Amino acid sequence: MRTENPWTTCGSRVVYKNPWITVREDDVIRPDGKKGIYGVVDTRIATAVIAMTPQSEIYLVGQFRYPTNVYSWELIEGGTDPGESALVGAQRELREEAGLVADNWRQLGGEIHISNCFSSEIGYVYLAEGLTHTDSEPEGTEVLQVKKVSFEECLSMVDSGKIVDALSIVGILRAERFLRGIKS
Amino acid sequence: MRTENPWTTCGSRVVYKNPWITVREDDVIRPDGKKGIYGVVDTRIATAVIAMTPQSEIYLVGQFRYPTNVYSWELIEGGTDPGESALVGAQRELREEAGLVADNWRQLGGEIHISNCFSSEIGYVYLAEGLTHTDSEPEGTEVLQVKKVSFEECLSMVDSGKIVDALSIVGILRAERFLRGIKS
Repeated sequence: MRTENPWTTCGSRVVYKNPWITVREDDVIRPDGKKGIYGVVDTRIATAVIAMTPQSEIYLVGQFRYPTNVYSWELIEGGTDPGESALVGAQRELREEAGLVADNWRQLGGEIHISNCFSSEIGYVYLAEGLTHTDSEPEGTEVLQVKKVSFEECLSMVDSGKIVDALSIVGILRAERFLRGIKS
Repeated sequence: MRTENPWTTCGSRVVYKNPWITVREDDVIRPDGKKGIYGVVDTRIATAVIAMTPQSEIYLVGQFRYPTNVYSWELIEGGTDPGESALVGAQRELREEAGLVADNWRQLGGEIHISNCFSSEIGYVYLAEGLTHTDSEPEGTEVLQVKKVSFEECLSMVDSGKIVDALSIVGILRAERFLRGIKS
């Protein structure tokens, strides 16, 4: 089975950059041998945290998402800082967004390629248990609401389409399988 | 509960555009009242199809994903053409990528916001049954392999991290719930 890279990159230039995303346009030879371009968005590692209490409640964060123009309830999420590992980034986001620290961390499943048609963004999902409250430090770009819901309610929000964020959906459905004892 | 838009858009300009993505930078007043910018990637609607046989086998498509630089097995996926509905786009992709048409289509769950930190991309997942073979018409940018696997194997590929594409993971895990009779 042929799985090698059928693309050739002949050149690459950054066409847009801000503190969160870099867009580059590569000159390529496409798989069919013709010349073309490929625009790729590079960004930070995405992390999502299922912060779960002993009563199987989890924390959801609500915020208005500017790109999609909707209010969105999600897992505790964020992008890593430069040089920061996914786990350390997830721990920081849990502290900043929900004011929580956790004793036990477990990665649920492997890496997630969020939108691999045009973006190199990769995400990871963690289950965080053994929670203790600390001070939260929200960023200036965020106006967050935090609430605790039962895991059953959270699953129902996924099934009914009330939770729309892809990484949250993946995290919650992976947690559902993990809680049923399915190994990943 | 406050769910209104806390952002104000003061200006917007396209900073990059190719046939697949448009990147714009908006001048904004952030939720904390300070001036800032927001870079947003606009793209086509994403669709994923679970094409399932009466024996509960599903079709997976393998291709090298340029942005993430890996070979990736996924559901049958594609972006809609301008003016095309998600369902019609999904039907076209099923025909183009797998050479299949389906009698029965069912949307699994609601819309999926793929990467809502920086992108307005929205996705939909469909279950397609009653399959008949037709001719496939792959695009020049694609070198595809198609294989049929049992749904159990497909689930195992999700659990073990062999399937990494977010929309595929969401689609397969939603299908698993649907097949267990959980309403969405």
